[in-house]
Amino acid sequence: MSISSTYFPNEPTAPIIKTSEFPGEKSKADIKSLNKVFDSRSAYFVSDYEKSVGNYLVDSDGNTYLDVYAQIASIPLGYNNPALIEVAKSDKMIRAIVDRPALGNFPGKDTEEIISEILKIAPKGQDKVWSGLSGADANELAFKAAFFWYQSKKRGYSTPFSNEENVSVMEGQAPGSPELAILSFRRAFHGRLFASGSTTSSKPIHKLDLPSFNWPKADYPSYKYPLDQNEEYNKEEDKRCLAIVDELFKTWKVPIAGLLVEPIQSEGGDNHGSAEFFQGLRDITLKYGALLIIDEVQTGVGATGTLWAHDHFNLSPLPDIVTFSKKFQSAGYYFHDPEIIPNQPYRQFNTWCGDPARIILAGAIGKEVLKHDLPALNKKVGAYLFGKLEALQKKYPKYLQQLRGKDRGTFIAWSLDDAAARNKFLADMKTVGVNIGGCAEESVRLRPTLVFEEKHADILVDAIDKVLSSY
Amino acid sequence: MSISSTYFPNEPTAPIIKTSEFPGEKSKADIKSLNKVFDSRSAYFVSDYEKSVGNYLVDSDGNTYLDVYAQIASIPLGYNNPALIEVAKSDKMIRAIVDRPALGNFPGKDTEEIISEILKIAPKGQDKVWSGLSGADANELAFKAAFFWYQSKKRGYSTPFSNEENVSVMEGQAPGSPELAILSFRRAFHGRLFASGSTTSSKPIHKLDLPSFNWPKADYPSYKYPLDQNEEYNKEEDKRCLAIVDELFKTWKVPIAGLLVEPIQSEGGDNHGSAEFFQGLRDITLKYGALLIIDEVQTGVGATGTLWAHDHFNLSPLPDIVTFSKKFQSAGYYFHDPEIIPNQPYRQFNTWCGDPARIILAGAIGKEVLKHDLPALNKKVGAYLFGKLEALQKKYPKYLQQLRGKDRGTFIAWSLDDAAARNKFLADMKTVGVNIGGCAEESVRLRPTLVFEEKHADILVDAIDKVLSSY
Repeated sequence: MSISSTYFPNEPTAPIIKTSEFPGEKSKADIKSLNKVFDSRSAYFVSDYEKSVGNYLVDSDGNTYLDVYAQIASIPLGYNNPALIEVAKSDKMIRAIVDRPALGNFPGKDTEEIISEILKIAPKGQDKVWSGLSGADANELAFKAAFFWYQSKKRGYSTPFSNEENVSVMEGQAPGSPELAILSFRRAFHGRLFASGSTTSSKPIHKLDLPSFNWPKADYPSYKYPLDQNEEYNKEEDKRCLAIVDELFKTWKVPIAGLLVEPIQSEGGDNHGSAEFFQGLRDITLKYGALLIIDEVQTGVGATGTLWAHDHFNLSPLPDIVTFSKKFQSAGYYFHDPEIIPNQPYRQFNTWCGDPARIILAGAIGKEVLKHDLPALNKKVGAYLFGKLEALQKKYPKYLQQLRGKDRGTFIAWSLDDAAARNKFLADMKTVGVNIGGCAEESVRLRPTLVFEEKHADILVDAIDKVLSSY
Repeated sequence: MSISSTYFPNEPTAPIIKTSEFPGEKSKADIKSLNKVFDSRSAYFVSDYEKSVGNYLVDSDGNTYLDVYAQIASIPLGYNNPALIEVAKSDKMIRAIVDRPALGNFPGKDTEEIISEILKIAPKGQDKVWSGLSGADANELAFKAAFFWYQSKKRGYSTPFSNEENVSVMEGQAPGSPELAILSFRRAFHGRLFASGSTTSSKPIHKLDLPSFNWPKADYPSYKYPLDQNEEYNKEEDKRCLAIVDELFKTWKVPIAGLLVEPIQSEGGDNHGSAEFFQGLRDITLKYGALLIIDEVQTGVGATGTLWAHDHFNLSPLPDIVTFSKKFQSAGYYFHDPEIIPNQPYRQFNTWCGDPARIILAGAIGKEVLKHDLPALNKKVGAYLFGKLEALQKKYPKYLQQLRGKDRGTFIAWSLDDAAARNKFLADMKTVGVNIGGCAEESVRLRPTLVFEEKHADILVDAIDKVLSSY
């Protein structure tokens, strides 16, 4: 029996569409009513999570969508997954909800166990973890770790702070608060708080009117597709981008403590980098003495056909820090070098230091992912789906440009001519019962759950065919 | 029957101490073991949350402490509160755990209801809310709101962004990413991410080695106690600090979009500001066209004898933004001015936009707080406790200096000679069965739950007396 049938004996076998407009009448009324208490202007529709099951999301009007967006790539095992419901009902979870500890000062008797669970699914070689609350938070905690590490290396790991540092830091001045940078890439998305936002540059709307740290941005490769017909060009593109990174390290006006990069730039357009590109980044960070921070917030936990997307790159030495959130439902960063632990307690610290309720859930998600080898499932289903999309591409080349994500599980995307064409396509997909998301201005990204199978891929491809045949 | 007996028929009637050292043998071993997977260097002891009840926290060794620190001021209704356990078991909570929505794009059918619940306990006149994940996050979301508002006011709320803004923002440069500031106070604590950290200045260890925004810091009043014997001096102190704030607004090199202030500086030493001081701040923000942002992360939800601490100040007009977290277990900010909603969707936005599981819990906490009028209880118990501490102060003036928090519920603090004396006192309190916290370098802060009653206050005062009588 397939994994989705095992989890969801009552999963619908096809979408059900009840309205002719999206959002439908009831969703529209619900969005309007919600707007009295909560800014609902970005709501697509209002969901009925009680009725949603597996890969199908139900809205207020009873429309039942095949969901290949999955709460912005963050539902791991389908709606109302019974294994997660069981964990949600456990005494351990109830205590984590009602007796939320300050994990740094007053860890609980089960803290070691619940942290150990999320280490079981850690990226290869990463045996330590620090927990946070969101992808942006995870990245900023990683920046803090990088800055602590960089300055400790300069000062000496055990050297005490000077009086001058202790005084100047209270005024936000060097040497206590030094000018240091994180290098990131154009079109990157790493979150929308102020430091994470300073490393993000996918869309102006994320950042307009906000002050930011002036940190260096390199070019991320823009490959030509299909990859196997553009090897020479793409190799040159890697070289060009690596040269920019090297030059920035050499010339940037303040020291660069860490390089932050997504294995696949997701929000920014599903832009891929080759294994060689990432190995080049690893080499440059070693050359200049900076940490390599891999942001796996969107790519992590199995969807690319491996547990973590950077597993595709065979990096050596390992990345220094790997951040996670989204499909893991918790957040934080993995690492392995003990010197990434600050030289004193209370430097990487805050009241809650994560949320044990979400850490428990992440452990349960990891357990299911490993037990059912969901990365392998996503590899298989992704290859099947990619093949079908290649066939569709021949039929509709204008609407399936730059098809990307081959050998990257279900982490697949393509482009249309422009934002208008893309947005019309996304909207039209609802009329055939598919909830689907975009990235960058003109791209479509597939982000199904990890229990998306061939049967769901068939429905998706038929729906795309139906929409495009009407164009 | 008292509220704590109603909730906790089996609450211990006194602390039980089983070890002669703190942490005890078992906690020590647990901390060491935990350190293999999670930095546990700041752990006081390991807690047994299953056995903890009401105002009593149990550790691995079976020590049962009267807890007047409450997970760094964040446990609202006592450990294993039955009303919260019931909510934690509800279908609504289970769905919020396993089907965590992206609240901005796909709110659920119950989103309006759960948001409405947290509005029922909103500060006076605040009828809108935006949700986040921690106190630091709440403050940074508030900064974003302030910067959006400030620039919209300058540009015109409906004026579109210029091409120059859209281009420059991607490089982190003005005009798209302008230089703007948030004014805060010396000794303030507003969180430890990069922008919130830039407004924090309570201790160097929170900030060393981290880059920061160079934002203005004003003096927060340092009163002499008791207040009723130092009225003249304290009035002058208000004036001095207000003059500094005014001067900073007038002369700071970049525009100040918001003034951020704690009603009582908590982490920074339980420093109080008078109603007149806060009215002065309100006036200055109006004069210079900046938002008044009150950080109620630690002070909010009843402990000061009013629902929100700034209720003591009768501010008019109302504060523009009030941030919350800690005892509310959720986080975010309240506001009332519709122009604080950004002029376009997707400006105040992220994947999850809060955590509905924590919002549901906050609603349940608010319901209990209102139902049992816990601010009134805290006012009464606080007055009782303050009276007893004043009596102790006469007996041990050296160890109960600058007793503060009169008429502020249980939000009470005092100072000792120095950090060494304070740290010894905090440690010694464990030997008589009380878990108690400090603030600043030399102060003790009381942060019991909201269901701390006279009988608990008696135990606390007797324990303090016992420790101090041995000095």
